[in-house]
Amino acid sequence: MMRILVRQLIVAAALLLAGPVSAAPAAVEDGYDLWLRYRAVEAPWRARYASAGTAIVTGAPSPTLDAAAEELRRGLTGLLGTAPPAAAGAVDGAILLGTPRSLPRLASLRLPLGRVGSQGYVIRTMRVDGRRATVIAANGDIGVLYGVFDYLRRLQTRQPVDALDVVEAPKVKLRLLNHWDNLDRTVERGYAGFSIWDWHKLPAYLDPRYTDYARANASIGINGTVLTNVNANADVLTPPFLEKVAALAGVFRPYGIQVFLTARFSAPIEIGGLKTADPLDPKVRAWWEAKADEIYRHVPDFGGFLVKANSEGQPGPQDYDRDHADGANMLADAMKRHGGVVIWRAFVYSNEQPEDRARQAYSEFKPLDGKFRDNVLVQVKNGPIDFQPREPFHPLFGAMPETPLMMEFQITKEYLGFATHLAFLGTMWEEVLDEDTYRPQRGTPVADTISGMAGVANIGTDRNWSGSHFDQANWYAFGRLAWDPHRRARDIGEEWTRLTFGNNPRLVEPVVDMMMGSRQAVVDYMTPLGLHHLMATDHHYGPGPWVTNIERADWSPTYYHRADATGIGFDRTASGSNAVAQYAPEVSRRFGSLRSVRDDHLLWFHRLRWDHRMLSGRTLWHELVHRYSRGVAMVAAMQRTWSGLAPYVDAERHREVAAFLRIQQREAQWWRDASIAYFQSISRRAVPAGYAPPEHVLDHYKQLSFPYAPGH
Amino acid sequence: MMRILVRQLIVAAALLLAGPVSAAPAAVEDGYDLWLRYRAVEAPWRARYASAGTAIVTGAPSPTLDAAAEELRRGLTGLLGTAPPAAAGAVDGAILLGTPRSLPRLASLRLPLGRVGSQGYVIRTMRVDGRRATVIAANGDIGVLYGVFDYLRRLQTRQPVDALDVVEAPKVKLRLLNHWDNLDRTVERGYAGFSIWDWHKLPAYLDPRYTDYARANASIGINGTVLTNVNANADVLTPPFLEKVAALAGVFRPYGIQVFLTARFSAPIEIGGLKTADPLDPKVRAWWEAKADEIYRHVPDFGGFLVKANSEGQPGPQDYDRDHADGANMLADAMKRHGGVVIWRAFVYSNEQPEDRARQAYSEFKPLDGKFRDNVLVQVKNGPIDFQPREPFHPLFGAMPETPLMMEFQITKEYLGFATHLAFLGTMWEEVLDEDTYRPQRGTPVADTISGMAGVANIGTDRNWSGSHFDQANWYAFGRLAWDPHRRARDIGEEWTRLTFGNNPRLVEPVVDMMMGSRQAVVDYMTPLGLHHLMATDHHYGPGPWVTNIERADWSPTYYHRADATGIGFDRTASGSNAVAQYAPEVSRRFGSLRSVRDDHLLWFHRLRWDHRMLSGRTLWHELVHRYSRGVAMVAAMQRTWSGLAPYVDAERHREVAAFLRIQQREAQWWRDASIAYFQSISRRAVPAGYAPPEHVLDHYKQLSFPYAPGH
Repeated sequence: MMRILVRQLIVAAALLLAGPVSAAPAAVEDGYDLWLRYRAVEAPWRARYASAGTAIVTGAPSPTLDAAAEELRRGLTGLLGTAPPAAAGAVDGAILLGTPRSLPRLASLRLPLGRVGSQGYVIRTMRVDGRRATVIAANGDIGVLYGVFDYLRRLQTRQPVDALDVVEAPKVKLRLLNHWDNLDRTVERGYAGFSIWDWHKLPAYLDPRYTDYARANASIGINGTVLTNVNANADVLTPPFLEKVAALAGVFRPYGIQVFLTARFSAPIEIGGLKTADPLDPKVRAWWEAKADEIYRHVPDFGGFLVKANSEGQPGPQDYDRDHADGANMLADAMKRHGGVVIWRAFVYSNEQPEDRARQAYSEFKPLDGKFRDNVLVQVKNGPIDFQPREPFHPLFGAMPETPLMMEFQITKEYLGFATHLAFLGTMWEEVLDEDTYRPQRGTPVADTISGMAGVANIGTDRNWSGSHFDQANWYAFGRLAWDPHRRARDIGEEWTRLTFGNNPRLVEPVVDMMMGSRQAVVDYMTPLGLHHLMATDHHYGPGPWVTNIERADWSPTYYHRADATGIGFDRTASGSNAVAQYAPEVSRRFGSLRSVRDDHLLWFHRLRWDHRMLSGRTLWHELVHRYSRGVAMVAAMQRTWSGLAPYVDAERHREVAAFLRIQQREAQWWRDASIAYFQSISRRAVPAGYAPPEHVLDHYKQLSFPYAPGH
Repeated sequence: MMRILVRQLIVAAALLLAGPVSAAPAAVEDGYDLWLRYRAVEAPWRARYASAGTAIVTGAPSPTLDAAAEELRRGLTGLLGTAPPAAAGAVDGAILLGTPRSLPRLASLRLPLGRVGSQGYVIRTMRVDGRRATVIAANGDIGVLYGVFDYLRRLQTRQPVDALDVVEAPKVKLRLLNHWDNLDRTVERGYAGFSIWDWHKLPAYLDPRYTDYARANASIGINGTVLTNVNANADVLTPPFLEKVAALAGVFRPYGIQVFLTARFSAPIEIGGLKTADPLDPKVRAWWEAKADEIYRHVPDFGGFLVKANSEGQPGPQDYDRDHADGANMLADAMKRHGGVVIWRAFVYSNEQPEDRARQAYSEFKPLDGKFRDNVLVQVKNGPIDFQPREPFHPLFGAMPETPLMMEFQITKEYLGFATHLAFLGTMWEEVLDEDTYRPQRGTPVADTISGMAGVANIGTDRNWSGSHFDQANWYAFGRLAWDPHRRARDIGEEWTRLTFGNNPRLVEPVVDMMMGSRQAVVDYMTPLGLHHLMATDHHYGPGPWVTNIERADWSPTYYHRADATGIGFDRTASGSNAVAQYAPEVSRRFGSLRSVRDDHLLWFHRLRWDHRMLSGRTLWHELVHRYSRGVAMVAAMQRTWSGLAPYVDAERHREVAAFLRIQQREAQWWRDASIAYFQSISRRAVPAGYAPPEHVLDHYKQLSFPYAPGH
């Protein structure tokens, strides 16, 4: 015992002398490690884990298997304080790592590898050559890496690992981040600094951060990344940039992350010297084919193109009187022989068209079902407008049975308070994924209608990657839901909390509770009761429900809330735009009836009088004020909760979160007060008794200006 | 002995368990700590230092004295592995810290505090109350902090500290960084990412990085910072931004760093609602007075304004037919009662004026000498054009005896290879500071003509602050030279190398040699023999000696090199623009004569035939090709040197520097080849025997385009 202690002390001292202990304390809990914080495990877990990780057995190497072994070594070294040695064969407590090909011994262990496909894995505690061992095995190298991250996560969250029988495979094939990063390193709707792609220094310099990005993504199963903004720049398809893209792809490849690019539809004109980008023009088709060949020469496993066409000013096939299928298929033909895909966004709406914006994507794309090549996916935002704090699910889910659909979630919080508001989006995504589409029949949740999931990244140059510690949870939750869209948000939130802040139950429970309620708080203080699109123009920072005179009607908040002296809300029932008819009949009836629609979707689908009586017994006006106030109160409650957690969180992170909650508190109050002041000016009703009047008059709020708000 | 060992082990283990040893290795040597890397000292120094730092004795607290004590604790803990305890009075090996006011015991020690002014300090090894002690004492709190950094630097660089008798005071009063940071966080001529001022989250959130910024600056004696770009934006003077500025000032105050802002001359119109910004208009004067009052309410120790007026499109007093003194004095009057200064830039030149651009600042400002208020300083760039790789010193130095001048150096490498070229600027600045102005008489170097020094910062969001590890040396050298402009570049370079990479002589000597030659290499491969302003337009990335057709003549490289079939160079002697006449007669004669001018200034002052015979015996054309080639060869030599240093540098930094040297090598070759190809097309001469011809034809180089080069 004494000898062990002394040996531990010597190891500790050796590490101390070699290492960074004297580094500025500021670096310690700055969030850079994300959820891969392999901090030392406390007794008695340490002994239990140590006995199950005495050595690492690997077979034939490969870049991915090397990354897996290296991650396991790094994780165990951090968690247990000693580096596990390599062993040639099973010893007691060994971890065997590989595929039947890399480590033939695994082939005869009768593992259920038939159930995990090319990306899944098996983790099993078993006897191997008479020794107690843990096997992390897969059919493909990437599955082994995923298995290692799973195994380490169990240690980090203090799960037992002495009787494991894990059989895991992703439920969704394409699990992509979408970076809205521009070539000048600005990030559209980015609130975590600037783009981590340092294009100028690429390809010669590979920032170690690229590797850590790949590790983080692989750890949650993300298997592709679109490097560039959907508002696209053709220059990324030119040779100098393709060399840079190839360099990034080289870093990501061992981690199973394919690179995708956004394709600007007019690229043949802009960088190809053609006079047209007509998708049926043979020269255009030939140009894209040659471009695809060129890309694949640079990146042999290139994933494909993501395209935003004929939407918000982006060029597209409709510029040539072709339809979206014509455009997508032309690109798909160019990709086909290389195995690439085309992901075509359904986020389209036209100002010229007088149709309710919420209807337009369905109207445009539903008729195209069956007309796309088999390597085209259509990417649909979770709701029919644009990533609002709450939207009903998009009617296209389940409505295009012949077309593989991608779900597009927005991880970056364009409409949910940027980086400083605490809003866990796991609940929002779970809510949408759980919704029953009734297509083709009852019991078909949105989760079962998708072939891929895309998350608009919240990643930037900020040291903590996401702009705030809690925003890391959204990146994490996205990955975990993309792997399995049936996972529960609370489980993911708890897992993330343990990985990020530790396993003390006094901390875990309150933090998870706070996270679980946080998105509803934002909905309440920004857009309660189904209201939507009430933010200020352009930068989307703060409230602007009064805005009406901007270039296009459907960028005006007044278009969406339609408040006047008599009432408020957008009638999307049969008596209005009839957007409800785009859903399956059962869903349509639910949304269309005041008896069955949820309060949280009320004014999305219905226009009601201010004195409409709610289920709560309050009038609509009273309920509106109540919800706005409740949202602010929830933020105050989060502040109190967080304040009480000071003993369990390191000072640096506690301070930052507390500062952000103060910002959120002030901005929630601002949203509430400005919104109530505005709606009061329309409804001409008094603020109900028991609720504070707005702090300022309406004009005060209208005059605020934020020309330097980020992300714009 | 054994007990000590065990105690050290226990301490080590405690630190290990508490600490970040298991953090991602990527974080370890990422450069964030700058030169404040308090890594463990090896034996036998450790014992020597430990016996001189057994305890810390402080007196009455203040924010600055607390910062000093905290830094000393942090430094000793890192360097020696144990935190020194606080003691109430002298014990053997104690360090006493303070001013005669904070620690009255210091008052009776007969320290030479009369010689160190308000910002200097004394460090002395002496007996105090019969105990062997080290005293770090000053008249002002900030001197104590400076003394602590000096003391720690001695330990970091392995100097003996057992018989100290240090008496130090800054030779220059104002030691400022100039940030060219915009409110949208882009940085003009910034190559280290984006602005570290996260305006959107200020004032509520104070990034710990602000504190580390202040620590780093204080450690090298910088005592002020201009937060915003000289191409100014009036919005920073509005109340929401003043609150943010005040928050930053609050962080910096304990570290002795005053905050300054750039004042946009037309601010009274843009944010004040006035119709004019005429400096003699009473309403304008009143507006600035009120604005000054408002600023000082937010920041009671506000430093003052930096102004770029009537230069490169910036508004100024000449818009109203007033002169620079009218403009500066008006602002100075507004600052005066608050103790603030106005720093007025002399970097002015006019396209309408046919005068040689190198002459214009002198022509404009020399006649104003004596006309400025006493709280105005005129800020003059080191050379008469614009931060070129080599310029002769600016003729205004020594020429305005009635006016305090600031030296403006550019730390960011706009014209010396951005962040990826290794170029130590200490030698460049030393060269200028050493030049004898002969004003008022021989023996008056530039260093003795200045009242302040400003450095255009190379700081950004990059983890290592400056975009590369070696660019940290330029920030460091700037601070050390601002403190004492007579310090030797080599000493500074060695000091920095030891602080940054350690004290192994096998590393220190080659690195310092490399640094000392690095700037000449850049001069040679970009602009040898006095050539200047040959870079590509706008972004200044790469060569563009052929550029002639841009909006103004004096932004054209051809304006500066004047090459034609007969010869090359800008005649600034009496037969030409006679810019030499702006120097003192002795200097004028030296620059004006082919016998005495240095080769490195040759074509700055003289126009010569291609077959002009050089001192080397080569023709000018041959010498030009030789210098270009020599520059490239020097980069190859740096690569070899660095490659051999792998055993002495951690892998991460070694890899990054090696990658950057590869970039530098390729770009040096590009500069050489493009320049030779171009000048060959003019001179119609063959590349001399023994020199490789350019890799590509001239058109290749002309057609390169870099729309996303950073810093633009």
